[in-house]
Amino acid sequence: MKSELSTFFDRVLPDVDASLDNLLPSGTTPPEKIHQAMRYSVFAGGKRLRPALCIAGFALYESNWTAVLPVASAFEMIHTYSLIHDDLPAMDDDDFRRGLPSCHKKFGEATAILAGDALLTLAFEVLAGIDAFPPERTLRVISMLARASGSESGMIAGQVFDIEAEGSPIDRVDVERIHRSKTAAIITAAVTAGAFLGGAKEPELGSVRVFGERIGLAFQIVDDILDETASSETLGKTGGKDRDQAKATYPALHGLERSRAIVRELTEQARAAIRPLGTRSEVLLSIADYLETRSH
Amino acid sequence: MKSELSTFFDRVLPDVDASLDNLLPSGTTPPEKIHQAMRYSVFAGGKRLRPALCIAGFALYESNWTAVLPVASAFEMIHTYSLIHDDLPAMDDDDFRRGLPSCHKKFGEATAILAGDALLTLAFEVLAGIDAFPPERTLRVISMLARASGSESGMIAGQVFDIEAEGSPIDRVDVERIHRSKTAAIITAAVTAGAFLGGAKEPELGSVRVFGERIGLAFQIVDDILDETASSETLGKTGGKDRDQAKATYPALHGLERSRAIVRELTEQARAAIRPLGTRSEVLLSIADYLETRSH
Repeated sequence: MKSELSTFFDRVLPDVDASLDNLLPSGTTPPEKIHQAMRYSVFAGGKRLRPALCIAGFALYESNWTAVLPVASAFEMIHTYSLIHDDLPAMDDDDFRRGLPSCHKKFGEATAILAGDALLTLAFEVLAGIDAFPPERTLRVISMLARASGSESGMIAGQVFDIEAEGSPIDRVDVERIHRSKTAAIITAAVTAGAFLGGAKEPELGSVRVFGERIGLAFQIVDDILDETASSETLGKTGGKDRDQAKATYPALHGLERSRAIVRELTEQARAAIRPLGTRSEVLLSIADYLETRSH
Repeated sequence: MKSELSTFFDRVLPDVDASLDNLLPSGTTPPEKIHQAMRYSVFAGGKRLRPALCIAGFALYESNWTAVLPVASAFEMIHTYSLIHDDLPAMDDDDFRRGLPSCHKKFGEATAILAGDALLTLAFEVLAGIDAFPPERTLRVISMLARASGSESGMIAGQVFDIEAEGSPIDRVDVERIHRSKTAAIITAAVTAGAFLGGAKEPELGSVRVFGERIGLAFQIVDDILDETASSETLGKTGGKDRDQAKATYPALHGLERSRAIVRELTEQARAAIRPLGTRSEVLLSIADYLETRSH
């Protein structure tokens, strides 16, 4: 399993990086500074989880994933914008990201705000420019991405809930709502959009959606656990920050052991959801295994 | 002319406001605070110039403009997001907007950043959800809006050029580039998208585009002139700020008289561009007249 996953990532990641390199304005395109800032954050060593999930969803149905690369790249742009804005002094105020100075530390706060805005905008420009799929499908993917990023049940909602929960008493419903909107929504959209563009129809599309929801929630809980247990050096960002900021996390609410058990349960539910797809689902299954056991 | 324009605005503005009210999450939708912040800024008394231009472009071809209202509203969302982010302490640091506390003064900086992000995201969600036009047309309008908002030649590029120009020696090419990208691009996109969805084809679409570019540039020059000459009370924001911040403006470069002459020239070019459209163009012509002579 593990080696199949390595093979998948070895094949996918260079394609994703080449696509991002191709879609992002060059660092010599005026105004240079913002394009350098966008590239700095996009190429700062992310795991490319969302693009990989988008491609793996597509690859359930189509072995040549070239057509879906711009979509996978758009998801990474949205993810990167959210990290840039989350790190700002007015938000989580984090000086480091993936072991490097965060965007505003490197380029200044104004440029970081605008670089985030520009990545968000470019993601939609890229999607709107795709002509490899029927236009009504592309429109539906734009809707999926926008909702998963938005203020009602998407990433922005999650960030607001998260800020509001800081230092307040929280319960299980609160923290699950934060994690679902802040992290799981966009992960779900990535794998679902890939499968949808590959040609998935209900009920298989629904199975893929459930898979995304479960691994998305598990992913954020693992993040919380690692923030408690791993060193800042391993994380590439400041560890233990969640506790210092009294963030709403699973370990804060349930303790580490119960949090780990919840991750196992969610991952098992994710596996069960896509088991009916048979051997096609092997890459997604091994991504779920990797996310459950990752150490950074 | 003037009274025809009033009639147009009297008919259009309630429709635009109703559409925005309908499209924006209510102030009681969780997370409440961000939705209240989005609504606060959207309903803070803007002129609705971009929606009006979008509708006027559409109305060149279709007398019932109901179908284009979500598109017009998306342009206003993008405009409002840009004002919220421009006002941030790290950017122009403006405490007032349209006579009211700016979004970050009222709701805090984190919420203002996220409210801007959410309006930008919602604009694309709204466009992607439109089914009144052939999907390939809707996709093209999403492309137009994204490019006009983006970091290469759109609003974000203009904001970066503007920040970089502060306090530096500027020439005519610089300041025109700033104004074209920062303000004219989105105004051009609004009227062009409206005409395109109404059914405009080349060469008429090109005429509408030229009209938009000329009035867009003129609009920003008038803004610069008013910043020099009008009181803060009339403007509803801090007057004289451009000079204090050594912003790149037409009055700074050319003086007030020459700037006024440039506005007249641009407005005449705008009028000339759409004159071939005949009586259909009367609303657009009177918008051009209004923009040339406005006092706030």
